[in-house]
Amino acid sequence: MAGGKYIGVIGAGECDAELGTMAEAVGRGIAEAGAVLVCGGMGGAMEAACRGAKAAGGTTIGILPGPDRKGANEYVDIAIATGIGEARNLAIIRTSDVLVAVGGSYGTLSEIGFALKMGKKVVGLKTWDIKGMVPARTAEEAVRLAAE
Amino acid sequence: MAGGKYIGVIGAGECDAELGTMAEAVGRGIAEAGAVLVCGGMGGAMEAACRGAKAAGGTTIGILPGPDRKGANEYVDIAIATGIGEARNLAIIRTSDVLVAVGGSYGTLSEIGFALKMGKKVVGLKTWDIKGMVPARTAEEAVRLAAE
Amino acid sequence: MAGGKYIGVIGAGECDAELGTMAEAVGRGIAEAGAVLVCGGMGGAMEAACRGAKAAGGTTIGILPGPDRKGANEYVDIAIATGIGEARNLAIIRTSDVLVAVGGSYGTLSEIGFALKMGKKVVGLKTWDIKGMVPARTAEEAVRLAAE
Amino acid sequence: MAGGKYIGVIGAGECDAELGTMAEAVGRGIAEAGAVLVCGGMGGAMEAACRGAKAAGGTTIGILPGPDRKGANEYVDIAIATGIGEARNLAIIRTSDVLVAVGGSYGTLSEIGFALKMGKKVVGLKTWDIKGMVPARTAEEAVRLAAE
Repeated sequence: MAGGKYIGVIGAGECDAELGTMAEAVGRGIAEAGAVLVCGGMGGAMEAACRGAKAAGGTTIGILPGPDRKGANEYVDIAIATGIGEARNLAIIRTSDVLVAVGGSYGTLSEIGFALKMGKKVVGLKTWDIKGMVPARTAEEAVRLAAE
Repeated sequence: MAGGKYIGVIGAGECDAELGTMAEAVGRGIAEAGAVLVCGGMGGAMEAACRGAKAAGGTTIGILPGPDRKGANEYVDIAIATGIGEARNLAIIRTSDVLVAVGGSYGTLSEIGFALKMGKKVVGLKTWDIKGMVPARTAEEAVRLAAE
Repeated sequence: MAGGKYIGVIGAGECDAELGTMAEAVGRGIAEAGAVLVCGGMGGAMEAACRGAKAAGGTTIGILPGPDRKGANEYVDIAIATGIGEARNLAIIRTSDVLVAVGGSYGTLSEIGFALKMGKKVVGLKTWDIKGMVPARTAEEAVRLAAE
Repeated sequence: MAGGKYIGVIGAGECDAELGTMAEAVGRGIAEAGAVLVCGGMGGAMEAACRGAKAAGGTTIGILPGPDRKGANEYVDIAIATGIGEARNLAIIRTSDVLVAVGGSYGTLSEIGFALKMGKKVVGLKTWDIKGMVPARTAEEAVRLAAE
């Protein structure tokens, strides 16, 4: 199996500069920790995280909602085209050993809920504050908590 | 199309007597309002709601996670066997015009998040308190808010 | 549970007049046999079959690929919005006790294969000739073979 | 994006020695052609193909039906846990640029149908003979036809 731990990054498909910088640092940290980054493969926080991971020589997996691998952002190494729309969110969570949520809105909340239901650790960064999550203040702390 | 409005009921597959009574009253109210009840077709709050709806002569749809219609509780009129596991939760929400969440834990939170993302009204009864939801204190109030 | 047997009708989303007439007769026969018609809820053979079933007072279920019940043809009683694209084909087959394939091309072949894998009887009408299917020459014969 | 072409291998989860040898040679050939092998990640023809690809230093992706990456065979590099059962077959096909079918029964037929519907080339080796497929007599020929 590739790369030991699979760390999922969830967050909005569109994000502002601050969250983008944070997601990129999370991605870089995941790569530096020797873990594989799993995400939805699209834009926003997902793309920023993938860019960070690639800059640090990591491996990135994008599990896409659409029917074609071409939908992936350019920093995705392994693109999976599911064609099942948002139902692919569950595959992102199931494929990840642990999750980092960066920002996001209701879609991210839905993913956090499912991850907690599956008994997975969810580290939160500027996102929902749900009982059972592990809050982090910085990208570095989030990665440390996720990787440990 | 059958029965005008489709009202989804979400909640835990296991629930205590108080929540069961509440879910049953919600189901009865949905039927009395002339709406179709949509749910996951399994036990707990889902079964209680279906029982209530059938007692009032309503129509119930159960969208099941498993591969066989036999998995439905006995109060389901129309059983849909999806075989896609929890990914069927998204079909419950998409099929419903409005949702009532009764109790529940992380799985219900995940469904609430997805429903809000889809822009659907979610009435909450003894469940999560998420910004954007409409809280209700009684089953009757929940049905009234959902049906209006 | 509604209506005893659930008979699925599969076939192309676009079909010529001859296949349409055939699919309509299959739908009518399913309703006359007291069974519930299950299909993909869209146009072509699906719509023709639903129209036939409704003309005979039957019940029709449409399991849709898209995210909205509004996508169903006008003869669908119970519309299920899955949002999972063609993956909903598997739910059509799982929900049906037996299938009738009317015309169709590769998509229908895929459904026939999955139905046979699930151990379900598949009656064929002007469609693929796959070992394990039960061929019929007329809509009436197809319904008789499916309902028995 | 990793490895240029993604070649999917489909076939039964259980297979005899002859088909296993064939699937292994297909996997080896895919790796030697510099392509990424995509499959269902389970046993039988899938495992044999992955073993062949790894022996030749290739990269293997397994898109699993179950909820846990641990379900993958030991030759899978990148395991995707979908939790959507056989509906993951569609993701295998969508993720692949071209498919090689090795043996198999109705499940493989269903996948062949879906791949042809998606307009993808399907090379067949000791499997169904469906109009639109490209037949091959040996593993080497199959890989050559798939990779060209």
